[in-house]
Amino acid sequence: MVHPNAVEFGPATGLSCRECGALYELGPSFACTECFGPLEVAYDFGTVRRADIESGPANIWRYRSLLPVPVDVETKPNLQPGWTKLVKADRLAAELGMRSLYVKDDSGNPTHSFKDRVVAIAVEAARTFGFHTLSCSSTGNLAGAVGAAAARAGLDSCVFIPADLEAAKITMASVYGGRLVGIEGTYDEVNRFCSELIGDELGEKWGFVNVNLRPYYAEGSKTLAYEIAEQLGWRLPEQIVIPVASGSQLTKVDKGFRELVKLGLVEDRPYKIFGAQAEGCSPVSRAYKAGQEVVQPVKPDTIAKSLAIGNPADGPYVLDIARRTGGAVEDVTEREIVDAMRLLARTEGVFAETAGGVTVGVLTKLVREGGLDPEAETVVLNTGDGLKTLDAVAEHARPSAVIRPSLAAFRTAFAN
Amino acid sequence: MVHPNAVEFGPATGLSCRECGALYELGPSFACTECFGPLEVAYDFGTVRRADIESGPANIWRYRSLLPVPVDVETKPNLQPGWTKLVKADRLAAELGMRSLYVKDDSGNPTHSFKDRVVAIAVEAARTFGFHTLSCSSTGNLAGAVGAAAARAGLDSCVFIPADLEAAKITMASVYGGRLVGIEGTYDEVNRFCSELIGDELGEKWGFVNVNLRPYYAEGSKTLAYEIAEQLGWRLPEQIVIPVASGSQLTKVDKGFRELVKLGLVEDRPYKIFGAQAEGCSPVSRAYKAGQEVVQPVKPDTIAKSLAIGNPADGPYVLDIARRTGGAVEDVTEREIVDAMRLLARTEGVFAETAGGVTVGVLTKLVREGGLDPEAETVVLNTGDGLKTLDAVAEHARPSAVIRPSLAAFRTAFAN
Repeated sequence: MVHPNAVEFGPATGLSCRECGALYELGPSFACTECFGPLEVAYDFGTVRRADIESGPANIWRYRSLLPVPVDVETKPNLQPGWTKLVKADRLAAELGMRSLYVKDDSGNPTHSFKDRVVAIAVEAARTFGFHTLSCSSTGNLAGAVGAAAARAGLDSCVFIPADLEAAKITMASVYGGRLVGIEGTYDEVNRFCSELIGDELGEKWGFVNVNLRPYYAEGSKTLAYEIAEQLGWRLPEQIVIPVASGSQLTKVDKGFRELVKLGLVEDRPYKIFGAQAEGCSPVSRAYKAGQEVVQPVKPDTIAKSLAIGNPADGPYVLDIARRTGGAVEDVTEREIVDAMRLLARTEGVFAETAGGVTVGVLTKLVREGGLDPEAETVVLNTGDGLKTLDAVAEHARPSAVIRPSLAAFRTAFAN
Repeated sequence: MVHPNAVEFGPATGLSCRECGALYELGPSFACTECFGPLEVAYDFGTVRRADIESGPANIWRYRSLLPVPVDVETKPNLQPGWTKLVKADRLAAELGMRSLYVKDDSGNPTHSFKDRVVAIAVEAARTFGFHTLSCSSTGNLAGAVGAAAARAGLDSCVFIPADLEAAKITMASVYGGRLVGIEGTYDEVNRFCSELIGDELGEKWGFVNVNLRPYYAEGSKTLAYEIAEQLGWRLPEQIVIPVASGSQLTKVDKGFRELVKLGLVEDRPYKIFGAQAEGCSPVSRAYKAGQEVVQPVKPDTIAKSLAIGNPADGPYVLDIARRTGGAVEDVTEREIVDAMRLLARTEGVFAETAGGVTVGVLTKLVREGGLDPEAETVVLNTGDGLKTLDAVAEHARPSAVIRPSLAAFRTAFAN
């Protein structure tokens, strides 16, 4: 199918329905008019070589030949996210009794979460479609990422969040000068409101990164898969633990791995994908354990607010992938989340967001219970930054003592 | 002078007194026994080529041939800081009426401040000297950097801070599991206490990164100069604005530029160095304006706590460099700091710490008052992260509205 924006979208050739396969031109569409299934980007990659990627910039644009973006994307004003560290976590591995463990640490992105990856792709699509305002519903990290990306690109922004988010996320999302609107309700209610808005004249000229730009936006998560494989020396990990909010990230990491295999950039070897949720918002984990193929929505109640999506759009796909690859979906308690955040900080010097506590917590639980092979090469994702969820650890992270500046006072405080 | 650790310290050949030039073996020493002047690392670089650097890792270890570290430093467990973004700030430049402006954004470091650079060098020295505990006095960013680096390296840590620091910095510094000690007093009192401690048996086995490891530690700031020059395409900027706390960073950026010229890695062309302080802690700026060569200590009172050093050790060197290069030292009010933080966020999507507000504020002031050439290529440093100093902007960064999730409520809130 020929489309009108061949240059602007690089190797992308159209949009295809993930359910019925119907094909559409590249545009600001997100749902199949035939079956209402979600649309995703279809490509004609041609030949892609490791050397071309390796000579690219130290950000996600090194993979521009695998993304719906123009070839000159790196010259445009964007935040240049990605190429974050893959930390060899030997001290954490030792504590867990594992042989080979890595932390993919996306707190190194410009606004300190993986959301900068997806937003960067959406910004390019918004430009092409002539949207002058970027918008989204957000559990917090996306709000900051959209605000910052819009500011740098010279676009307006109007972002919607649940009004009860962490203070750090609210301040950060506001500081870039766009509009931030607090909604009295859960993320799922914010999301429904945005869908209404997009059908209204108020919002029809806006680019909602995770609604009408979602097919482009979601592709940004593939870069996590590409980077992990390249950073391992062009090799897929044997096991990977990924947080599940909407489930989009996990499905796109799987898509990214499969693309690398198909293009001959990595060897085709089996990998297992594990989804991680907080017990307080674990609709996918519950469905997995119950052997179901559908996901019953829940009302979230967890400190892992960035994962607090009670009605995850990609939940069924997550179940498919976990089962197909031989992985699992698991959840952890609030206490396990905090313990895992502290464990990761103490062993590797990585201060993760609560969502990172969820993945490391699930990793810990799966190793302990035998659900994950401690001998297999494993990657765990940290998708956010501890500075945004300070309250979670504040009571455990205080000065050992407060003293006057004298040796005598120091001796008294640390007599033992 | 031959030294015992030839392998561990790479191109370093000894320590030399910055005042009298006396030479010492490489060791945990920091003051000249002849004249009490500060010691700094002396080198024999041999030949260093651009290509060797360019083929190195995307962190400060690409410059290992210019630092007091072993050749295999990148294989050791450290946080691999550096190679942060040099953001082409066209929108900020347009607002200020400048032709070519870049922001060197060190919020991209692992603990989100430039301190990861200096600590990484100190950790290697501590290992070599057999120190098992890392320590420091800190205005906040260094505390987090030391805590994280020690955790990753498997060392103990004991960090001293003024007890009234920002909550985010206290939590972050504690989360890595080392000891954090709050001192009732200013940073200068904390610093004096640490000097006492180092002379006492309590602290004599500790590596204080900014006291007995200071000659090594301070060299880490040179990497800012190297990266800026390389990221500009192996060229020195014509003007650079650098925050002044102790003044060490500014003096080492100058040292780094001069080394690049001497090694033939960049063309020898003039550059001007500008120092930036907060009015509430501006001892160096005051001395500069008064035409003095000594710096009168002050008692700090500013929201830019990471720059709140009232008795800056390198103050006289900063004065020398500003005058020698044709730069200046300037200061800005609390209001100007906050305005500059918001300006940078709104134009470039960079959420800087208060210290970044100080440099961008001074840049703005100097351009406005004619002290800095708007036609010359200019770099301004952001050395920290807005998430650590949220209170500074919190009252200006709030939701535009909080509403129920309905189109009617949205219409009412945004009727105009």
